[in-house]
Amino acid sequence: MTLPTSPSHWPSEFELIARLTDGIHTGDDVVRSIGDDAALVVWDPSKLLVITCDAQVENTHFKRSYSSPDQIGRRALSVNLSDIAAMGAHPRYALVSLIIQPADDMSWVESMYAGLRAQAAAFDVSIIGGNIASTTGPTCIDITLIGEVLRTAALRRDGGQVGDRVYVSGDLGAATAGLATFTADVSAVPAAALEEVRSAYREPIPQVALGEALSQSGVVNAMLDLSDGFSSDLHHLCDQSKVGADIEQASLPISTATRVVGEALGISPLDWALHGGDGYQLLFTVPANREARLAALPSEFIRQLRPIGWLTPSEHGVQVRAANGSARRLYPGGWDHLKGHRIS
Amino acid sequence: MTLPTSPSHWPSEFELIARLTDGIHTGDDVVRSIGDDAALVVWDPSKLLVITCDAQVENTHFKRSYSSPDQIGRRALSVNLSDIAAMGAHPRYALVSLIIQPADDMSWVESMYAGLRAQAAAFDVSIIGGNIASTTGPTCIDITLIGEVLRTAALRRDGGQVGDRVYVSGDLGAATAGLATFTADVSAVPAAALEEVRSAYREPIPQVALGEALSQSGVVNAMLDLSDGFSSDLHHLCDQSKVGADIEQASLPISTATRVVGEALGISPLDWALHGGDGYQLLFTVPANREARLAALPSEFIRQLRPIGWLTPSEHGVQVRAANGSARRLYPGGWDHLKGHRIS
Repeated sequence: MTLPTSPSHWPSEFELIARLTDGIHTGDDVVRSIGDDAALVVWDPSKLLVITCDAQVENTHFKRSYSSPDQIGRRALSVNLSDIAAMGAHPRYALVSLIIQPADDMSWVESMYAGLRAQAAAFDVSIIGGNIASTTGPTCIDITLIGEVLRTAALRRDGGQVGDRVYVSGDLGAATAGLATFTADVSAVPAAALEEVRSAYREPIPQVALGEALSQSGVVNAMLDLSDGFSSDLHHLCDQSKVGADIEQASLPISTATRVVGEALGISPLDWALHGGDGYQLLFTVPANREARLAALPSEFIRQLRPIGWLTPSEHGVQVRAANGSARRLYPGGWDHLKGHRIS
Repeated sequence: MTLPTSPSHWPSEFELIARLTDGIHTGDDVVRSIGDDAALVVWDPSKLLVITCDAQVENTHFKRSYSSPDQIGRRALSVNLSDIAAMGAHPRYALVSLIIQPADDMSWVESMYAGLRAQAAAFDVSIIGGNIASTTGPTCIDITLIGEVLRTAALRRDGGQVGDRVYVSGDLGAATAGLATFTADVSAVPAAALEEVRSAYREPIPQVALGEALSQSGVVNAMLDLSDGFSSDLHHLCDQSKVGADIEQASLPISTATRVVGEALGISPLDWALHGGDGYQLLFTVPANREARLAALPSEFIRQLRPIGWLTPSEHGVQVRAANGSARRLYPGGWDHLKGHRIS
């Protein structure tokens, strides 16, 4: 899937954030603010508040024809749960801000909200507030999620060290493959593979329990979730940790369903795996001398982890190494909220 | 100003919230959730977290032709500061979620955000996070604001008691008058009055210091901020406190500028005062045996307080009493985010 181009004078999301928030001052009680998956604020001597917000906008992030309202509601919470998971934190409270058209189909709104509530209940999150505002434009589901984490356990993007092994928490590219099927001729795609990749897009599973287990294990140096795309998010981690990365192409976990769909659609599943982020897996790094301690995790977590490469000195940049040993530079090719329109 | 009608099958904002959130369960750590100006969550044995979110949508809540970008940014934070003030709390942290068109005028976005930052700095609020998402529709500025309050000091909508005196924190209707001037023939309006009411709309002053002083004074039984409109918000307080109210029409504070503009536009300033909420004053109730303790407040606060009536048994309903003693029922005629479009 090729991302559409956009006028070059448009800033990227990250350029705009940098311009808007340049020089913002926060007190000592703010341990981490703009630039990570969530902000960290002192709660008490042992705990931190973990706070994030993420909006799902109709036709930008979802389409009513691609997913059921229930799935759209669940996913809106899941993308926020994933940000909390990326800090190794436990989600607690949600505020749900809906921006809708007054003449909208209220049964759609109610079904969407019911899905959101069901996902909140499944993750023991209390919906404590929110807002409803009217618009003449696309529906927005904007959620603020608050969690907690032990001060000593919080995981950030900037902790990676040269020599760390890089891991992902599961298959890459399946959700992006699923998204691609909505606008492609899928007559040649086997039904089971189609269902699997569409489900990966419609109902991503936020890795909350794994994130908490990793933070409590004390083995991880840096972590984030793959929301913008593997290539973009790996760059975020490397930029903040001031390191490079060497990724083994053959180690990237790509499911059979993703490969089958790629073949049927004539698209490289590797492109989906490298640049798609809709699956919300965790990406994290572990120093060599602590790697053995991953074995102490519950077996269901161990089974899903995949080592895919190493952190390197920053001057090496971010590279992908093919099976024959040849390396090529990996550029951020993921989702940009202002430049790229994944759904249009 | 007459609110436009809308199809009767549209739910009101409050009906929809009730339908969506019916039966939501929260744990004992959630002291207050949906239905107040902000949620209250246990922070530590002595303090509560106070959390609110409110969105400003272009053409629904603001127009670029009515205010400068700086004013729009300040106001977006102010409406949230007002919700924190309504709980008697101290604002601490903000997350700013922007939903914008990629091709939008970025200098407008930057100026708006600069205003928001300036207002945050003025109220010692740290902007700790946020999000930027793209839309094809109107700009949305959606803010989550987190504050803190002593457990014993938090003020809610549901604490009003029969016999309490009802107070407002300042002039009513000026901001709504200001809004009305943008679509009216203002050639007959004196420049100073025009400037004053427009300024009340463009730059409402959230009553944070007063709210904190009132909560710390221990004299207030119930409080909220006037965001939907005096008549609607008074009903919210009365409904939640299970009381009625008797309001003395002659006591409602209406500025000279508001009266002058009303006269020039042929609109009753009383209607603006009763149904306009854009001014973000506080409405609160004080039992008779504690009223004398208001005199211990700093003089700048005492000066702005206006007693306007009493809480009565709920069967009396909400009434406005004219100078000649005749009473009429006051119905909620304020802003509904789904039914009424104040700006269109």
